[in-house]
Amino acid sequence: MNNTSIAGMKRTHMCGDLRLEHAGQTVTVNGWVDRVRDNGGVLFLLLRDRAGIVQCTFDKSVNADLFDIAFTCRTEFVVAVKGKLVARDTAAINKKMPTGEVEIIAEDIRILSKAETTPFEIDDTKEVGDQIRLKYRYLDLRRPSMQKNLMLRHRVTQVARNYFDEHGFLEIETPMLTKSTPEGARDYLVPSRVHPGKFYALPQSPQQYKQLLMLSGMDRYIQITHCFRDEDLRADRQPEFTQIDLEMSFVEQDDVIAVNEGFLQRVFKEVLDVDIQLPLPRMTWQDAMDKYGSDKPDVRFGFEIRDISDIAKDCSFKVFKDTVENGGTVRLINVNGYADKFPRKEIDKLGEFVKTYRAKGLAWMKLAADGSMTSSFAKFLSEDEIAAIKERAGAKENDLLFVVADANWQTAAVALGALRCELAKRLGLAKKDDFKLLWVTEFPQFEYSEEENRLVAMHHPFTAPMDEDIPLLDTDPAKVRAKAYDIILNGCELGGGSIRIHDPELQTKMFEALGFTEEKAKEQFGHLITAFSYGAPPHGGLAYGLDRLCMLLAGLDSIRDVIAFPKVQNASDLMMNCPDIVDDKQLDDLSIAVTRVEETPEA
Amino acid sequence: MNNTSIAGMKRTHMCGDLRLEHAGQTVTVNGWVDRVRDNGGVLFLLLRDRAGIVQCTFDKSVNADLFDIAFTCRTEFVVAVKGKLVARDTAAINKKMPTGEVEIIAEDIRILSKAETTPFEIDDTKEVGDQIRLKYRYLDLRRPSMQKNLMLRHRVTQVARNYFDEHGFLEIETPMLTKSTPEGARDYLVPSRVHPGKFYALPQSPQQYKQLLMLSGMDRYIQITHCFRDEDLRADRQPEFTQIDLEMSFVEQDDVIAVNEGFLQRVFKEVLDVDIQLPLPRMTWQDAMDKYGSDKPDVRFGFEIRDISDIAKDCSFKVFKDTVENGGTVRLINVNGYADKFPRKEIDKLGEFVKTYRAKGLAWMKLAADGSMTSSFAKFLSEDEIAAIKERAGAKENDLLFVVADANWQTAAVALGALRCELAKRLGLAKKDDFKLLWVTEFPQFEYSEEENRLVAMHHPFTAPMDEDIPLLDTDPAKVRAKAYDIILNGCELGGGSIRIHDPELQTKMFEALGFTEEKAKEQFGHLITAFSYGAPPHGGLAYGLDRLCMLLAGLDSIRDVIAFPKVQNASDLMMNCPDIVDDKQLDDLSIAVTRVEETPEA
Repeated sequence: MNNTSIAGMKRTHMCGDLRLEHAGQTVTVNGWVDRVRDNGGVLFLLLRDRAGIVQCTFDKSVNADLFDIAFTCRTEFVVAVKGKLVARDTAAINKKMPTGEVEIIAEDIRILSKAETTPFEIDDTKEVGDQIRLKYRYLDLRRPSMQKNLMLRHRVTQVARNYFDEHGFLEIETPMLTKSTPEGARDYLVPSRVHPGKFYALPQSPQQYKQLLMLSGMDRYIQITHCFRDEDLRADRQPEFTQIDLEMSFVEQDDVIAVNEGFLQRVFKEVLDVDIQLPLPRMTWQDAMDKYGSDKPDVRFGFEIRDISDIAKDCSFKVFKDTVENGGTVRLINVNGYADKFPRKEIDKLGEFVKTYRAKGLAWMKLAADGSMTSSFAKFLSEDEIAAIKERAGAKENDLLFVVADANWQTAAVALGALRCELAKRLGLAKKDDFKLLWVTEFPQFEYSEEENRLVAMHHPFTAPMDEDIPLLDTDPAKVRAKAYDIILNGCELGGGSIRIHDPELQTKMFEALGFTEEKAKEQFGHLITAFSYGAPPHGGLAYGLDRLCMLLAGLDSIRDVIAFPKVQNASDLMMNCPDIVDDKQLDDLSIAVTRVEETPEA
Repeated sequence: MNNTSIAGMKRTHMCGDLRLEHAGQTVTVNGWVDRVRDNGGVLFLLLRDRAGIVQCTFDKSVNADLFDIAFTCRTEFVVAVKGKLVARDTAAINKKMPTGEVEIIAEDIRILSKAETTPFEIDDTKEVGDQIRLKYRYLDLRRPSMQKNLMLRHRVTQVARNYFDEHGFLEIETPMLTKSTPEGARDYLVPSRVHPGKFYALPQSPQQYKQLLMLSGMDRYIQITHCFRDEDLRADRQPEFTQIDLEMSFVEQDDVIAVNEGFLQRVFKEVLDVDIQLPLPRMTWQDAMDKYGSDKPDVRFGFEIRDISDIAKDCSFKVFKDTVENGGTVRLINVNGYADKFPRKEIDKLGEFVKTYRAKGLAWMKLAADGSMTSSFAKFLSEDEIAAIKERAGAKENDLLFVVADANWQTAAVALGALRCELAKRLGLAKKDDFKLLWVTEFPQFEYSEEENRLVAMHHPFTAPMDEDIPLLDTDPAKVRAKAYDIILNGCELGGGSIRIHDPELQTKMFEALGFTEEKAKEQFGHLITAFSYGAPPHGGLAYGLDRLCMLLAGLDSIRDVIAFPKVQNASDLMMNCPDIVDDKQLDDLSIAVTRVEETPEA
């Protein structure tokens, strides 16, 4: 057998780290052959490792044997090369490569591993289909862009662990084999060999454990952990995802926010060298919904929503007037300065777009650069009414107003909110390297569940209400706001959390407001209620979606690109080929049987 | 409702951090009432947090209202106390408390949470049953010893992450939802809602993924991750446990060992302030078995095994003679200096002890301090033979020799190895704070499986053989040694690893030696074999059992004490009450049914 050992040929430097300052040194590099170029007796072998690519040069006239070995190397062979690092001739300098000012004049080469032709080229500039990328993920991960993504993710977690350690947080692991929750529909279950007929569940989050850790006096907890949700198929969802999960004792909302702002500032600085100004802006949920039609407002661009219900109420356009008279709302956005980008045909299509958000239609008014106006509804209005709307919208030349009237204010807001984001996207106004962080606060404590025909907890039943709203629990619970907060980056929810109820009396009131009988509360949360009876500190916390955080920091569109081994949309792993059938013996050991076998849905 | 808010009463210091240097400051502390002592108008309230306990003093004659509130406080109430920190009178100094030189003269108190009487006292000096400790784990974790354990664990993981980060390792997460392995019997399975009839498996280790990460050029990988094994009930086993898992490219065994020795040195220094001298001792597997009868030798004490087969071969004691003539072995240990600790009755009991290790009996020779000798076998030997054995054993006054003869050398070695550990334990020679680390190397590549009647891989089929033993693969595979290494601490395996095969040709040979047909190899490891065909770097790694590492560092006997929420021996969680039955609807969604329900075995 050939010598494929690394002995005697271990690297002195990473390929991508070599610079002019190293010239004159004898170096050894180890890596994958990225390209080979034969320049008539001089062979250039580009060698790649995690740090980058360096050129190794083999001159047949100097050492024919060495040249001949190098000549057999094909793309993706793994080799070790030893030689003298020299400055390239000025004409040969490659400014596109960080190592482009130097090359290694090879004095030795060893082939550590040969390679078959890969199913796709390891080349960031080449488009490769998702299916094949994921089937051969280990090859996909050789692409410099993917390596960069995972290095960024490593850096983010490292910053998190160090920052929170410095701030007194203890990393404490919570179990993966735990109990199915009352809303068990999304739980992954794990049958138990030792306990026939019984099941563990994989955690949707460590929420209960982290609160128990606060009751146990651990004071500050952090964990970066996998969570599991057996959700319906959706693009860019993973059945397992990673949270940076934390909880603090003896704190109020401002304390949780402050420590997390420090963390975010550190991440942006250390990972991207971007300075984030603190404190971050805060916006109440109501303001976010009113101005941006979203509880995760993207504030990188304008087009804020304005309410014209007061103008519409008495106007001559019956649709507007009736909507307001029946308790509804009329709202608009002004796509200021971009009217010329939207011909009539485009505008009509946007009408279809807002309908997917349950809006009934989209009225519009376009002000051309020459001062002329076209509109779907202006003809029904008086001059004064038009003037009032224009004034409210701050409309001027080349502006385009979109109006939605709806019986439900949230429907109007959400439709316009989605529209403003869609328009910004089309206009290229939402830059990925323009990082706009903000907190959304004062979330409603409850939301109405049409399915259950009652108020349900918007976060979870342990979320504390705002102090001044506690009396409303008895009188008007729908108006109660929670000590809950989300951290938003560029229209995405990076994380969210709340202050928890630590007072058993208040917890009882909360269960009452949620329509829980004492028995039901006990059945679902018995061990937690017991735990709280033994002395509970005021506490609160937050959990970040690490995948999404990394995706946004890396300027990517898919969380798959920051996960080493992701699953596809149907929750299967194309590389490992799982889930898969198992031996009947295994099932029998677990005291379970399969009741139905179906074809796997398309990936 | 009472004001139970932390607002205005947030701590300035942790209870346990207050010292004489803080005297004169107005401080606020938050914590749990550890004890209350009423000293006739002066009330001492001891307040506890993660950092320790401080005394808060309430004088009725100074502030009766404050005194009355403090008077209502019972053990485990959560309170905030504000006051002036003062030096105690000399007579009142408590040298047993780190804060014993100071006390807080209370100026304000707020009860943040009342507490029912806890099912056991939060007191390290009180013994509490395991069942009740684990049912109320959140109370058990309030005990200072348990808080210390979890803080130590946090520190160990923090050191690991920083050390390996500094050494170029990337933390990369691998999936929890993966594929059942060929030896699937120990896999936890997870049914899939989306793929009826198919299952994920929870990983027994990330072995395949970490090797794929090396193939992907990630170069150095670390992960601290949960692994799962559905094993039979055994004391101090956890169905989920935590590994510090790592892998490196372009390395040999010495490189892996060197980087890990640096890690261990750092852990001992930073966590325990103990200096570990490097390099650590190494011992081959053969030497470890011969001298210590174990592949995880405890070298804190002597009693090494010696072979007397050559003396026994021609001796007049038939049992010894026949054993050697039939290819067996006669070995002994010398419990030197402790003969007087073992009366005859004890010695007889040790004969029973070694039988549990499959030894057929235990011969002995006792040399009293007065020079007299008693023995179970000396009467069958000549003076010269006795003298030869004594010389080989280095026997002198007050020594006790134990001899095992067995057809199988490993049986003799293992029985004597277990005996020496048992004796050291009884004699108190194995001190928990005497840390003896060593590497065991040159493990056999294969072991004989009686079940399968063939050689099987001792580690896994990707473990590289030692270079000089490669020819033996064809001629005498049982003699092949592997590039495998375990790190041992005080008789426990802290971790283990190997250099992996990166050469497809050698891998083929290995599969052949294991008796795998090409089809079988492909069926079991197809995606890995394919992956290796696209260019594989030389690589190797190691995995530590984090639970055990923390247990040993903390000087504990059970890994449960370094796991926040452990499971009991029957793999159930007494606090969460899981595993548990689930709704039929959930099972139906997963296309499975329970085929057998049994009573839960005793915890």
